[in-house]
Amino acid sequence: MTGTLYVVGLGPGDRADMSARALQAVAASDVVVGYKTYLDLVRDLLADKDVISSGMKSELHRAEQAIGLAREGKAVSVISSGDPGIYGMAGPVLELLGNDPDVAVEIVPGITALSSAAASLGAPLMHDFCAISLSDLLTPWELILRRLEAAASADFVTALYNPRSRGRTHQILAAQEIFLAHRDPDTPVGTVRNARRGDEVSRISTLKTLDVDQIDMLTTVVIGNSQSRLVNGRFVTPRGYPIAEDALQR
Amino acid sequence: MTGTLYVVGLGPGDRADMSARALQAVAASDVVVGYKTYLDLVRDLLADKDVISSGMKSELHRAEQAIGLAREGKAVSVISSGDPGIYGMAGPVLELLGNDPDVAVEIVPGITALSSAAASLGAPLMHDFCAISLSDLLTPWELILRRLEAAASADFVTALYNPRSRGRTHQILAAQEIFLAHRDPDTPVGTVRNARRGDEVSRISTLKTLDVDQIDMLTTVVIGNSQSRLVNGRFVTPRGYPIAEDALQR
Repeated sequence: MTGTLYVVGLGPGDRADMSARALQAVAASDVVVGYKTYLDLVRDLLADKDVISSGMKSELHRAEQAIGLAREGKAVSVISSGDPGIYGMAGPVLELLGNDPDVAVEIVPGITALSSAAASLGAPLMHDFCAISLSDLLTPWELILRRLEAAASADFVTALYNPRSRGRTHQILAAQEIFLAHRDPDTPVGTVRNARRGDEVSRISTLKTLDVDQIDMLTTVVIGNSQSRLVNGRFVTPRGYPIAEDALQR
Repeated sequence: MTGTLYVVGLGPGDRADMSARALQAVAASDVVVGYKTYLDLVRDLLADKDVISSGMKSELHRAEQAIGLAREGKAVSVISSGDPGIYGMAGPVLELLGNDPDVAVEIVPGITALSSAAASLGAPLMHDFCAISLSDLLTPWELILRRLEAAASADFVTALYNPRSRGRTHQILAAQEIFLAHRDPDTPVGTVRNARRGDEVSRISTLKTLDVDQIDMLTTVVIGNSQSRLVNGRFVTPRGYPIAEDALQR
């Protein structure tokens, strides 16, 4: 008997931003596994289903439970916000499952936090960008520093995930300092908390004026490149570099 | 009279991957502007609308047309595949519009190529990543080289957009060479053409065996980091680093 495992991204949270494929996967499942906040986003679809709710810190446990149920032949959705393929559940599920011919896996992509934060701020991601998580739980801090340095020095627009938690406050300050060493202090910085939900808070400040106390684990931070600027209050990065005009005429 | 401008992302192409908000924006519009391939994705919604189809190279012209119509008080959707906020139409529209109180703009995000390619390959974007466009039309090639070098040396998973066109074939070879100087030749590389459409072709090879002749402008290339590996034929990047000290001392 073959089970099915859907790893489903619900996007930023609002129903209108979810794909039909994501909703169909949930509707087609016998069991839905996820953190409570995510389950609440599709609560109306769960009436006839087994629901396994678990805390934020037990991602591996959730993946194991879901795989176990799929191995029994059930259709199981592992749900989360954003895109499960970006810092999400897709990896842990595929790694734990390994080579198992009895379980069919489908990764159902969603609108990632990067895209929803960008839409709230304007158009900051019009040029090359990096995504860097500031959580040093599974990654050496020295490597994170090296990446911040690389992103800042090569003029990437940079999105910071997991920028700051109650017990982890110095990383965002270190990031700010590294970028200040490479970019104009007036470079736009956008912070978006709970993008595209009812309680969204988005702010645009600058590298110099960034108020890190407003930033927590639910915030995505976007730092502009050397060309980023405000257009009518929106954070916009141009598609190219001014000197490119010369290059075109060559 | 206030016009409305929706800048709409349709995701990878299949209707099931589109958000309800994107479809609603198109349905609510008097005029829909886009490249023919994108219009075909929502052709059934266009019966009662003015449709402005234009070629791939006239993005600015398209943005200007759409703004002109919105200034006449119309509801206008500018549509494209993927997410308009990532190398898309959101920036040109906001820049050209400037400060105009008579036009309300809404950026409607979609599932970006990065996410759809990742879902087809497995889970390559589980750790910090960069997106770099190899097109040097508007960006100095020296800056693109600097970014490739930065991404390769700081062990970012790297997605290459616009990797190769008929007349522009050396950039992908230069990228391959730069990554080979920093990573194991057996590092997984995924190429996805027309992700999640009927004619999708996705391949997993390695830095060393990558066949650049298979790559064109419709292909997204994803290069793994030092920890990426194949799990049951899928391209997976772990969420963290197992032996932190080793990663640091290289």
